Amino acid sequence: MNLRVVLVEPLYEGNVGSVARAMKNFGFRDLVLVNPCKIEDFGSAMASHARDVLQMSRSFASLPEALQGANLVVGTTGKRLDEAQHHLRLHLRVPCFSPAGLAEKLKGKDGTVALLLGREDCGLNSEELALCDMLVSIPTSIEYPVMNLSHSAAVLFYELSHGENGDFGTVEMASRESLNLLQEKSRSLLAEVSYPLHKVEFTLLMLRRILGRAELTEREARTLLGLIKRIRWKIGREGDENPAALDENKMLEESASSPASSPS
Amino acid sequence: MNLRVVLVEPLYEGNVGSVARAMKNFGFRDLVLVNPCKIEDFGSAMASHARDVLQMSRSFASLPEALQGANLVVGTTGKRLDEAQHHLRLHLRVPCFSPAGLAEKLKGKDGTVALLLGREDCGLNSEELALCDMLVSIPTSIEYPVMNLSHSAAVLFYELSHGENGDFGTVEMASRESLNLLQEKSRSLLAEVSYPLHKVEFTLLMLRRILGRAELTEREARTLLGLIKRIRWKIGREGDENPAALDENKMLEESASSPASSPS
Repeated sequence: MNLRVVLVEPLYEGNVGSVARAMKNFGFRDLVLVNPCKIEDFGSAMASHARDVLQMSRSFASLPEALQGANLVVGTTGKRLDEAQHHLRLHLRVPCFSPAGLAEKLKGKDGTVALLLGREDCGLNSEELALCDMLVSIPTSIEYPVMNLSHSAAVLFYELSHGENGDFGTVEMASRESLNLLQEKSRSLLAEVSYPLHKVEFTLLMLRRILGRAELTEREARTLLGLIKRIRWKIGREGDENPAALDENKMLEESASSPASSPS
Repeated sequence: MNLRVVLVEPLYEGNVGSVARAMKNFGFRDLVLVNPCKIEDFGSAMASHARDVLQMSRSFASLPEALQGANLVVGTTGKRLDEAQHHLRLHLRVPCFSPAGLAEKLKGKDGTVALLLGREDCGLNSEELALCDMLVSIPTSIEYPVMNLSHSAAVLFYELSHGENGDFGTVEMASRESLNLLQEKSRSLLAEVSYPLHKVEFTLLMLRRILGRAELTEREARTLLGLIKRIRWKIGREGDENPAALDENKMLEESASSPASSPS
């Protein structure tokens, strides 16, 4: 598993440097910054012997660009916000993994996991959280739950570096393209079954989270896409398509699976 | 268990403040400093909302004074030093617990545990390590094992606070009945979309596994049931049912969620 650390609009260069150091301490090197503050001498000093991580980091203007090529997107969020009353915000934030639970979940998985850490003052916003497949939160004291950015990072890296030793063999995780296609096709399906408009976003988000927590494999993603395609064909909205097209999809689906695990 | 955090001759006030913040983040308050650097504005700023921890800290001129009243003394040490050739130094540093191992060891124990963290540049010396009952070391990368002092502290506090702060509130997991109903309705749906017979069992099993790994909540299960119901109604095989029946389902779905989290 490759861990991509994504800092979203970090405000203080010292924190960026500190995060780079903590990354190298735990064997991670892939640092991506979204619209960051200027990083000059102090940031470099805080990186200490991890200046190379800082120098090799990439910066992007938007989060979606930073997530390109990631198989799974994990957002970090503070426990304090779980108490938000608004239902969408609530669903954006629960259920949530502990760092140890996340490490356990990712054990033996292959692919790129983007770990998002938000701004020092207000974390990740709702739009950013909506892009996440899973959430992780560090259990902190109710009295003072707001951790320093690089401290949160260090705790997460500590947990996520554990899995290095556990060898369960690896499974190909679903690509971001397949996951996005699933969202897109699900949206079309909801429209075609006259799903109540006011519930569409909520249900799509729920689906993303369910599939995210399930850590879908590429094979499973393709099977689900095939199933949705077949449903839509039956409903008659993919009218141009005929069983031949479905067979083509089936071939695609089966070519994605190894012979040993294909249904016979 | 009371955790007393003992910083031995810290060199930088920023680190002392950062450690105070991390302590409060994880519910610890007993900070003791041995012959520390001056702590002024920057240290206080780094403590942020944990200035009270900093203000209530006690300073001593020597380590034995700082350890008075402690039941157990735990020293932190860098893994890199395990390779030291000198047998006494080696014996001073091994065997050594991992943070998780230490947390396990201390579970359910009562008393005061002094956790010693050494200087930023050279850690704890041999005399100081000789005063320790146990040692703990954070597993780090061989390439760059030297962590920032407050990062080490945060990782250790995180492990030692386990159980204390670990309550995110609970989410009602999907009932066996709902999961079985989902299987049953999925089977009907597959039949109605002329899903290839030889693949039905395989796909149903895959669905069960995906939803199982996602650890579906009851609310999510009901939303998925509602979605399947709507699809089947659209396909026209649940012919007896009309939108009123769907509304009934919607009511069921909504009654399953708490008022605070129901869509509005």
